[in-house]
Formats: sequence, structure tokens, C-alpha cells
Amino acid sequence: MVRWKPGAQQRLHAAAMDLYAERGFEQTTAADIAQSVGLTERTFFRYFVDKREVLFAGQEAFQQVFVDGVAAAPEDASALDAVASALQAAASFFPDDRRTHSRRRQAIIVANPSLHERELLKMAWLSAAIAEALRRRGIAEPQATLAAETGVTVFGVSYRQWLAEGEERSLAAIEDDVLREVRALSSSTV
Amino acid sequence: MVRWKPGAQQRLHAAAMDLYAERGFEQTTAADIAQSVGLTERTFFRYFVDKREVLFAGQEAFQQVFVDGVAAAPEDASALDAVASALQAAASFFPDDRRTHSRRRQAIIVANPSLHERELLKMAWLSAAIAEALRRRGIAEPQATLAAETGVTVFGVSYRQWLAEGEERSLAAIEDDVLREVRALSSSTV
Repeated sequence: MVRWKPGAQQRLHAAAMDLYAERGFEQTTAADIAQSVGLTERTFFRYFVDKREVLFAGQEAFQQVFVDGVAAAPEDASALDAVASALQAAASFFPDDRRTHSRRRQAIIVANPSLHERELLKMAWLSAAIAEALRRRGIAEPQATLAAETGVTVFGVSYRQWLAEGEERSLAAIEDDVLREVRALSSSTV
Repeated sequence: MVRWKPGAQQRLHAAAMDLYAERGFEQTTAADIAQSVGLTERTFFRYFVDKREVLFAGQEAFQQVFVDGVAAAPEDASALDAVASALQAAASFFPDDRRTHSRRRQAIIVANPSLHERELLKMAWLSAAIAEALRRRGIAEPQATLAAETGVTVFGVSYRQWLAEGEERSLAAIEDDVLREVRALSSSTV
């Protein structure tokens, strides 16, 4: 019997990230991950439903930050202003000392089509959650969905830029710029 | 040996749609589909790479309609105007006599998470293709990606509305309304 030490989940997470980066996601088994930190496969599955969950844990918290950001916007905020509030809240979820970790995670996901599909699904869920939060503010459809999708687009473009080599601006600063581009884009008329 | 009759692909396609709708996608095998129209599994795989492809065939043509629509916009069109041109072109891909078929397809996809993920991937590819077409018009990043994503959002919202029960407007008419909402959304300032 392997005795559990404190921090087993953190150690499994770190070991999984190392192995996914070195060998590739497909080539790594749950047993490999567990063994590399002296634990059993069974222990791995006590903390993670499957191998993918190492990369997608914390999704509820991630989503909640956006939802809380929408709720925190001033009462008279427009749909897009409420989304801007959510984007600022989300930026606090990605402080600059997390950038290296996020870059590694992104490289693992980009290298694997099934992980890429999973990431798209995560963004679709995020969009649905933001739209619901906007409807709770009394914003009707299709405005709620359009504003939510716009928010997810701004987040996605900003996040990829934040991860780009050599980029040093904070996510919040990048989001501000991208949101400005979105407003400029759509205010130009035919 | 089963002799091939003309229209094997169409018959396989129709049979697959019927079986997916009746039994569910997971519960239907390629052999079931082929047998129901007197063909062999081997013949099925001559026309379709896998069961999913029945639902996603024609994706290149679908994407090309948007890309051609971007290219066809007047030279001085803004990024969003070029996207509006792509949306109008795409609407011609979905005439009203296709609505019943599209509703059936949508019901099959919504019922199956892996098909839903595949549909999201299709939309992500579409966005990338539109962004590329915009860059060929000299539109820089991040505007190209923002406009492309906005276009895919407008298409998605409009398409779901087009499929809604009781909806009788054409896809082109719905897209016009949704695009107007997008412009209104983003022109409101903080």
C-alpha cells in the first residue's frame, strides 16, 4: 500500500504536465503519471476522472469568475459593458506568474485534436454561462448570446496573444485593446 | 457481390439520417445503414470515411461559400461588411426547402456530445478560413479574427433561429436582423 502524502493532487498534476509535454498526451497513461510520483493508478483516479481532467480541472471556477463579473457590472451597464466587466474579472484569474504554466498547457492542447475539441467545448459552455448571466440582468435574446459570444471571442484572441512569445502586457491590458478593436469594428457602418 | 446502383451515396445518406433519428447515432452501425438499402458495409466506407461524415460531408463547399462571399465584397468594404457579404452568400447554401433536412440533422447532433464537439470544430475551422480570406483583403490582426468570429457568431445565432419551430423567415432575412443587433451592441459605449 502506498501511503498518501499531502499534496498528492498537486504532485500528480505537475507530473502529468511534465509527461504530456515530454511524451505527448496520447503516449502517457494514468499509470505512468502515478508511478512517476510514487503513487498508484487508483490514486490518480481518486483525484481526476480521466487524463484530460488534469488539463481542464478548475473549469467551474474559471466560468464562475466571468459570471460574477457580469453580475458585478453597474445596473445601467449595456450588455457589452457587462461583458467587459466579466473580462476584467477573468484577467485576475490569469496573473502574469501563471503565464509560463498556461503556455505549457496550451502547447499540449494544440498538439492534440481531441484536446482542442474539448477546449472548444469549454468555450461554448462559457459562452452559454455568460449569456445566462446577461439574461438574468434582463438582457433579451439575441443580444445576450451575441454579447456573450463577443466576450468569449475577445477573451480567446486576448488569451492567445497573452501566451505569444515575447508578449509582456497583462491579460487585462490586452483585453482592453481587443475590446476597443471590437467596438471599432462594429461601429463602422455599411 | 452486391451490384452498385446509381445513387448509392444518396441512398446511404438518406438511410443513415433515418436510422440516426430513429435509433440514435451511437446505436447505428455502418453495417446497419448499408443493409437497410441492400448494400454492404464495405460500400458504405467507399463513400464515407466514418459514420460522422454522413452528417459533415460538404463541409469544404460550405466553407468555400463564405470565403467566396468575403472575396466578392466591394474593394472598399470594411471587415464587417466583407463578413456581411459572406453571410449573404452562405444563406444561399440554405434555401428554405432545405430547412426540414437541416432540422433533422440538428436534432441528431444536439442529442450526441461527440457530434456537438465535431460541430464546434467545424465552426472553428470556418472562422479560421474567413479570417484568412479577410487577411487576403489586407485586413490586419486582430481585426481579421474578430470580424471572422463575429461572422460565425451571427451565422450560428441566425441558423439556430432559422431552425426554430414555427420560424418562416429566410436565413438571409434573419442574418440581416442579427447583424443589425451586433452593430447596435458594439456601438454603445461605456
